[in-house]
Amino acid sequence: MTADNYEAIFYPGKLAVIGASENPLKFGGLVMRALTDFGFKGDLYPVNPRGQSILGHKTYAKLQDVPGPVDFAVIAVPAPKVLDAVRSCVDKGVAGAEILAAGFREEGEAGKALERELVLTARAGGLRLIGPNGFGVYSPAAGLTLLPGVDFSREPGPVGLISQSGGGACDAIYMSRGRSVRFSIAVSLGNACDISVTEMLRYFEDDHRTRIVGAYIEGIDDGRDFFNALKGLAAKKPVVILKGGLSEQGPRGAAGHTGSMAGSRQAWEAAIKSAGAVMAKDIKDLTECLMAFNCLEGFSGRSAGILAGGGIRVVESLDWASYHGFLVPELDPETSGRLQALLPPAGGRGANPVDLANPMMSPSVIAPMMEILAKRPDIDFLALYQMLFYHFNEARRMGSDAFKIEFHHDLAKAAEEVREKTGKPTMVIMPDITSDPEHVYNEKGRMEARLHYTSRKIPCFDSADRAFSVLRRVADYYTGRGQSRFIG
Amino acid sequence: MTADNYEAIFYPGKLAVIGASENPLKFGGLVMRALTDFGFKGDLYPVNPRGQSILGHKTYAKLQDVPGPVDFAVIAVPAPKVLDAVRSCVDKGVAGAEILAAGFREEGEAGKALERELVLTARAGGLRLIGPNGFGVYSPAAGLTLLPGVDFSREPGPVGLISQSGGGACDAIYMSRGRSVRFSIAVSLGNACDISVTEMLRYFEDDHRTRIVGAYIEGIDDGRDFFNALKGLAAKKPVVILKGGLSEQGPRGAAGHTGSMAGSRQAWEAAIKSAGAVMAKDIKDLTECLMAFNCLEGFSGRSAGILAGGGIRVVESLDWASYHGFLVPELDPETSGRLQALLPPAGGRGANPVDLANPMMSPSVIAPMMEILAKRPDIDFLALYQMLFYHFNEARRMGSDAFKIEFHHDLAKAAEEVREKTGKPTMVIMPDITSDPEHVYNEKGRMEARLHYTSRKIPCFDSADRAFSVLRRVADYYTGRGQSRFIG
Repeated sequence: MTADNYEAIFYPGKLAVIGASENPLKFGGLVMRALTDFGFKGDLYPVNPRGQSILGHKTYAKLQDVPGPVDFAVIAVPAPKVLDAVRSCVDKGVAGAEILAAGFREEGEAGKALERELVLTARAGGLRLIGPNGFGVYSPAAGLTLLPGVDFSREPGPVGLISQSGGGACDAIYMSRGRSVRFSIAVSLGNACDISVTEMLRYFEDDHRTRIVGAYIEGIDDGRDFFNALKGLAAKKPVVILKGGLSEQGPRGAAGHTGSMAGSRQAWEAAIKSAGAVMAKDIKDLTECLMAFNCLEGFSGRSAGILAGGGIRVVESLDWASYHGFLVPELDPETSGRLQALLPPAGGRGANPVDLANPMMSPSVIAPMMEILAKRPDIDFLALYQMLFYHFNEARRMGSDAFKIEFHHDLAKAAEEVREKTGKPTMVIMPDITSDPEHVYNEKGRMEARLHYTSRKIPCFDSADRAFSVLRRVADYYTGRGQSRFIG
Repeated sequence: MTADNYEAIFYPGKLAVIGASENPLKFGGLVMRALTDFGFKGDLYPVNPRGQSILGHKTYAKLQDVPGPVDFAVIAVPAPKVLDAVRSCVDKGVAGAEILAAGFREEGEAGKALERELVLTARAGGLRLIGPNGFGVYSPAAGLTLLPGVDFSREPGPVGLISQSGGGACDAIYMSRGRSVRFSIAVSLGNACDISVTEMLRYFEDDHRTRIVGAYIEGIDDGRDFFNALKGLAAKKPVVILKGGLSEQGPRGAAGHTGSMAGSRQAWEAAIKSAGAVMAKDIKDLTECLMAFNCLEGFSGRSAGILAGGGIRVVESLDWASYHGFLVPELDPETSGRLQALLPPAGGRGANPVDLANPMMSPSVIAPMMEILAKRPDIDFLALYQMLFYHFNEARRMGSDAFKIEFHHDLAKAAEEVREKTGKPTMVIMPDITSDPEHVYNEKGRMEARLHYTSRKIPCFDSADRAFSVLRRVADYYTGRGQSRFIG
């Protein structure tokens, strides 16, 4: 297969939807709506034996009727009709097709045989397949999206995503949106009958648009080959792996879902560790790792300067930094004194962590303290604890929007200046305090702040535990390349 | 000290604020605003040498000028003026006072001496002290709240909270609000110079309004006595402990915050374990434990029936249930067949977990399946995975509110019916997918659903990991009372 084929599949200009429909309760209706609402950028050809036009696009009775070549096809018909659709793609000379329907390998022997038939037919005709039993391809540059991906970001970016779960891919992409993680290509491979996890690892290794890779894997059939591809990719680009089905009872679930053999936890941990990749514990953790890699290229910090308002945040950040293996160096009396001079007389402490005395301390006080800490040679990065809930709650009570906007704007600017002057990054910890729908305004403010910070490459986390856990893996990747770096 | 004193302190009818102010930048101004906005239910007496009236309340130059007895005083003056205020409380025969200012034990020798003086003065005069360096008492029944607690729930409930961090107490109470956790009394003890963690454990043991207790502890001075009080309380009521400062570097933070000796992790884990209490890892985890104890009195389930839409949620819930020690029993062919008959032809699986095929499966399909699972003798409780994000996103796109409300209403009703018929509880897992402020509507929907579920004693969690981790500790408490049950 040549690189040109991948271009036709992942960046198609001419796209057919086989089984297109006006009915939003059918796959073919959902796909049409997703593609038109998301904004497919090329020529879209609905294929359906009945009907003249779907959502404003001229409809063709057969794929063969579409004028000129077709790059890629979405096969949105039910399982029993998929083989015919694959044959028509071969006849038309389509480069690749994604198959959405379930009802193949994961359904037992008859499904397995049908899936084998699809693969043989496609291979004989030079057609590449994605799926079945998946949500297909998300390619923001081409305007292509997954089945429930109408509200994904339309902006392309440096992250490649491979998923053996369509739902998992959607979760990760929606969780990424407000964390400024943007994708080159995301594929929901489903049963991965043809294009496999291993092939996608190799694709992303060579793809100049992709700088970071995430993968949700349930099982693979080509252990040795997979391992070599993972190792090759991880040597060039950060890779974060979430492996499903590793518990005692877990393999049962994976077998029912994508018909995969899940494998043992020991074997998987050893393989990922020795390939030099990083392991995630769930989709949110995977997303936060992608965010951190996106923000902190080359990060190898081991030693934190922490600024936290209110005593428990001081205690907690020290506890979690320690737990995840970071140092929080004590300060010399001169540095302490300079910090103390900037703090209010009671409640604050010019130490590391700096106790900011209250969670709403002004950026004009915090910014110079950030610089003082970052200039110390024994501090590699800053962690800034922001209790935005109280902030936004106060703003809401006062009916003021101005109060709200200023803080994260000023603090992000301070972090950017510190990074420019010292090369040292800042990360922000913003706990998710809001629980009541009446206070959703506060949560919106937290989301706005997170978007603002992360778009400036300042990673944001929901707790000190998550922050230091993720940062530890980023530092492990960059300092131990090719070394053992698994953490549980 | 008699029970009457506690009533005067925690449910005061006549409250003085010493150092009351109109200025919202001062403690005395914040407190006055908090008490009036929150709605203190008794008589409020601002005390300030200047001024006639504060926020509509007649102001007294000295505490002695207040007509008649005073139950409780908020001392809102700076540290150097606190001793005089304490003396005036003694002279007035006040039962208790909370001291907000920092600048005592945590600030070194002079602060220690001043704090000792406060205690000696108060004890000699029969006055009890809360603080200093804390946020005081939250008593919804009395209309008393913590300094930043204006938007706490006004409804009292069965949970007692003890905190050596005012900020931590506020976080827990705000996080509790949308999880239907309501408090009898929460105290922010700060340096705990007089009323101690140990005394509060004993108070809650005897308090008929309190059924569950949570505590954030930095350090205690009375190890043996604390342990006995904890053991006595845990034998009667669930107790969840978050201990700060347990890491290698952590004690430094605790010393600076409340002047506490943090103690070793080993000693604390052993003590909590052997007392029969449950340990939390951070404030959010503490809150989720309180929610689960509030919903699941007597829960001792070990074996789950899981319903999850979309393959990854099946795999993930099996993995995390296993990881936290729960069984997910395989089903007999007859039960499987009955479930399968209710599911759509492709994509769903009538197994345990039930694969609901898609994350928006209708309650009319889910409800009978819940009952089928719950009626099995080898299933103790149900776990229902709800991907509300997709749900609310769809509702938002369609501009429909009706679509949104129906699902969690119907599912909560189904869970209540199952509980009535079989005695088996349901818990809900609703991941926090929303990240972009543009989608905050979806998060609001999730919060509304959580409030609805938890107000019906159906606990809700943000991930499968958190759900089974918390449930494990609830089951451990109720099945292993007095036994070892610490989990890390």
